[in-house]
Amino acid sequence: MPIDPTSDIEITAFEWVPSFAQGQVRDLRPRWACEEYGLAYKVRLISAIERPEWYFADQPWGQVPFMQDGDVRVFESGATLIHLAEKSGALPPPGSQQRASVMSWLLAAFNSIEPSVMEFVNCTFFSRKEEWAPLRRPSLTSTLTDRLARLEVALDDRQWLGGEFSIADIAMITVLRALPDPALLPAGLSAYVDRGCARPAFGLALAAQLAPFAEHDPRSTAKQGA
Amino acid sequence: MPIDPTSDIEITAFEWVPSFAQGQVRDLRPRWACEEYGLAYKVRLISAIERPEWYFADQPWGQVPFMQDGDVRVFESGATLIHLAEKSGALPPPGSQQRASVMSWLLAAFNSIEPSVMEFVNCTFFSRKEEWAPLRRPSLTSTLTDRLARLEVALDDRQWLGGEFSIADIAMITVLRALPDPALLPAGLSAYVDRGCARPAFGLALAAQLAPFAEHDPRSTAKQGA
Ligand SMILES: N[C@@H](CCC(=O)N[C@@H](CS)C(=O)NCC(=O)O)C(=O)O
Ligand SMILES: N[C@@H](CCC(=O)N[C@@H](CS)C(=O)NCC(=O)O)C(=O)O
Repeated sequence: MPIDPTSDIEITAFEWVPSFAQGQVRDLRPRWACEEYGLAYKVRLISAIERPEWYFADQPWGQVPFMQDGDVRVFESGATLIHLAEKSGALPPPGSQQRASVMSWLLAAFNSIEPSVMEFVNCTFFSRKEEWAPLRRPSLTSTLTDRLARLEVALDDRQWLGGEFSIADIAMITVLRALPDPALLPAGLSAYVDRGCARPAFGLALAAQLAPFAEHDPRSTAKQGA
Repeated sequence: MPIDPTSDIEITAFEWVPSFAQGQVRDLRPRWACEEYGLAYKVRLISAIERPEWYFADQPWGQVPFMQDGDVRVFESGATLIHLAEKSGALPPPGSQQRASVMSWLLAAFNSIEPSVMEFVNCTFFSRKEEWAPLRRPSLTSTLTDRLARLEVALDDRQWLGGEFSIADIAMITVLRALPDPALLPAGLSAYVDRGCARPAFGLALAAQLAPFAEHDPRSTAKQGA
């Protein structure tokens, strides 16, 4: 388990989030990459509830993750994945088809799939009581269904998007598992998500994200003593 | 002007799009990068109206751009930008702060800004007659306004997001100029977009995208003779 307080790599995460978000926070992505590539990292916890104003200098929208590797500062979970894969030598060489595939699928996760997944989560969960939400749902469901059907075709019978397991799979699998309605995932993608989540590195990253939440739960007795 | 039919780089674009989309199609991004880096490219035109089924093997959702560089196949405009910057040597070295900044801002354009811009365009233009659209608009406007205000703060008094002009600016500027309501752009970002669009490489890329549209206009006399 590569959490090591002396590591050069520091990932900023939330000390606590409500139960619906536990296991879904995006620091899971760089944590998972660190576990896959055997890179030790340490963690800096901040409050999601009282977001410190200084933190907006690290991450323009005050979100997590933010990552620091020695003097190098990285934000956006996608950029942390690229940084970690390059650092560990896991990224195929520039100019190769393999690298182009990893980058294409990584961007597809962040730009072609995550936006509809997030708007779907917004519509069915966060904003479900807004007047527009149930009205928006049918067209959004149809967009998402089309996107996912084509993604299943593109994955074909490969195990991973780029052939070998890569940061593109870390991106796509964490995007897909955020879908609140598992019925929306075609069988091939559902098996793909399960395959990813069965990797030991995923399990370690997930456990590490969850570990501090009990201690920092604003309603817990641990906190009441403070 | 680096359009050259003997080039190894081939960008797939639409032969014609309706006037509202002219100058906004995302093949503008790799074209702009080619012009900045002096890389010659050729173009393969496909129909946006009758999208050939074989094309979905090149781009999973049948969208443009798709790019081929010799044998290497790339999709997602973000991935084409990374490929071209690496090829030309314009990307700062792995492990440097400069590279991390370029990647962070590139991903920010694609994952933190473009999704709200696109849903705003959807809501105010494509879906404006849907019942949900005017109801969704206020909350979406407020999300977008917050994001853009923070982006303006983060850009500060720099010319470009990563200090030097980079593919992150190609990404962010093409995202921001898609906003249908210029009043939404804070002054600092409006000046930033103008600065980007004043670059000769941008002008060449834009002209090259627009050039084939007249000839392929389904209503034009040129086509009627066919
Ligand atoms: N595009 C960003 C998104 C980060 C993001 O949405 N982080 C969430 C947690 S998963 C967050 O910090 N939410 C709190 C907020 O938006 O204020 C990335 O991929 O890093
Ligand atoms: N995430 C993709 C988006 C590409 C995209 O939306 N392309 C548009 C043109 S700007 C398109 O092909 N639209 C037609 C369609 O979606 O069917 C990228 O950045 O390359």
